[in-house]
Amino acid sequence: MENTIRIGIYGYGNLGRGVELGVRQNPDLKLTAVFTRRDPLAVKTLTGVPVYAAADAEQFIGKIDVMILCGGSASDLPEMTPKMAKLFNVIDSFDTHARIPEHFARVDQAAFSACHTALISAGWDPGLFSLARLYMNSVLEEGKDYTFWGRGVSQGHSDAIRRIQGVKDARQYTVPVAAALESVRRGENPELTTRQKHTRECWVVAEEGADKARIEKEIKEMPNYFADYDTTVNFITEEEMKRDHAELPHGGQVIRCGSTGAENGHRHVMEFSLKLDSNPEFTASVLLACARAVARMNSRGIYGCKTMFDIPPADLSPLSPEELRKKLL
Amino acid sequence: MENTIRIGIYGYGNLGRGVELGVRQNPDLKLTAVFTRRDPLAVKTLTGVPVYAAADAEQFIGKIDVMILCGGSASDLPEMTPKMAKLFNVIDSFDTHARIPEHFARVDQAAFSACHTALISAGWDPGLFSLARLYMNSVLEEGKDYTFWGRGVSQGHSDAIRRIQGVKDARQYTVPVAAALESVRRGENPELTTRQKHTRECWVVAEEGADKARIEKEIKEMPNYFADYDTTVNFITEEEMKRDHAELPHGGQVIRCGSTGAENGHRHVMEFSLKLDSNPEFTASVLLACARAVARMNSRGIYGCKTMFDIPPADLSPLSPEELRKKLL
Repeated sequence: MENTIRIGIYGYGNLGRGVELGVRQNPDLKLTAVFTRRDPLAVKTLTGVPVYAAADAEQFIGKIDVMILCGGSASDLPEMTPKMAKLFNVIDSFDTHARIPEHFARVDQAAFSACHTALISAGWDPGLFSLARLYMNSVLEEGKDYTFWGRGVSQGHSDAIRRIQGVKDARQYTVPVAAALESVRRGENPELTTRQKHTRECWVVAEEGADKARIEKEIKEMPNYFADYDTTVNFITEEEMKRDHAELPHGGQVIRCGSTGAENGHRHVMEFSLKLDSNPEFTASVLLACARAVARMNSRGIYGCKTMFDIPPADLSPLSPEELRKKLL
Repeated sequence: MENTIRIGIYGYGNLGRGVELGVRQNPDLKLTAVFTRRDPLAVKTLTGVPVYAAADAEQFIGKIDVMILCGGSASDLPEMTPKMAKLFNVIDSFDTHARIPEHFARVDQAAFSACHTALISAGWDPGLFSLARLYMNSVLEEGKDYTFWGRGVSQGHSDAIRRIQGVKDARQYTVPVAAALESVRRGENPELTTRQKHTRECWVVAEEGADKARIEKEIKEMPNYFADYDTTVNFITEEEMKRDHAELPHGGQVIRCGSTGAENGHRHVMEFSLKLDSNPEFTASVLLACARAVARMNSRGIYGCKTMFDIPPADLSPLSPEELRKKLL
């Protein structure tokens, strides 16, 4: 029997709350504490787990096996992960692609020198979708990859709309173009522009008296975020926003079409897809399976920075190797 | 730079030919020899690789890094894999579920004592589908799994029909029931009987003068193979069989629907699916990616019997860890 793995949550937003709820589904995991940069007395957890100041985390060395870092990729994690990897085994969901090599190097150095195991960029994309791409590319050497996202809420795009003058609240859904998806699934290997792959659907609460035409124009012309997409803008009331757009669903597809055979005449389509009612809760569930693997890898003396590419799949499961071979192989 | 990995093929049927063709798509792999239990002089390979008698394999110790065993699970592999694991690193696609623990134990002992690495039950089911089940179960602790197969040719069921008196040739397609699949995809977690999940579609060439009504009845009432399914039987000519049913397509879906959240109110559907023009060529492609991993694990001193559950995903890819993080994470 393995010992219970003691989990800490560092940062208590949507993802942190997802981790807190997810721990209850895993009998071999135990939540020790939540750490916040806000006033701990002002934070009430969903399940009553104690809250401490982020600055006091150091006092929990030896009491927490894996610290799950629930900060943002833009400004939190680049500092937070290397710093915390000196104190604990850690997991983050760093998703700024261009900065992964740099982040990896800093975390690797910090974790390795402290004999800790650090897992970065865990979740579903990066994470499970990356794994799907890796398995598919390894099996089908000759082929073409596609990733579609949605239908789901993009928090970055929602925030971008909220920054427009006269906008009180906004929710943006990324939606894959059905015809493009079907063409890829049929193995047609189409060349697709950004516009042909996804549309963007916006739901906006305007402030009273705001110029809706201007808001719509500003959204649709916003570079990087919306200009390259077919975008629809719908104005709704605050009540409608609360009623119809309170959840954070997401999902998507990774598809690879490749070929084999004497004349490359045999076509194969591989697909991995997710349809998620709650993006943060699902991401949290991935992080918890990874926490199990990180604790096990650390106990075997595997130190430094890792990604999900480095985890033997069996390490993610609470089942023993024998049970896995019997039940899931 | 890693050295080229030298591959041997042991058993030259559909799967062996798939491995032979697949090697050409992997610049880091090289095919050294094919071994057959038939007269080697009577076997002509597709790409001109030399053929030797199975009994002479021992002479290739030191010349082959991974031997891919392309025998059948029923009678070949239970003897073949432990025997060959004493001589080489090996991979098989053993798929008799009930006998996996016993097979694993015998192969483990043989491989470990010879400092070899042996991978059993590789392919897509068992194999990639098993991995999908493992990842999905590890992430969504509370949920329900479904596996659908097809539309695809089941060689076992085709053979069973061919054994009926008056049958000259036969092809059997396993077909998932669309309504059941859709219900699972919608996250409805239905309880499904064998009959509700798949239908069986048979294409039969009868011998001249054979009693077709009797053949159809014998097929439909055959226990285990057909009695529990809605089965359709179509009689066709030899020419139609050659024209329309020469290929070995297959595929299927692994789907898990699980829930998270305070009241388990958020539902998540994960799906992995395959649509394959050629079952043996795709299976061969999986075995080749595994051959790369087996060679790497062996060079690290990881000996004994393994399954795909034990392979760190990065080991399957020809790309370096840095390239993987950059391109696929």
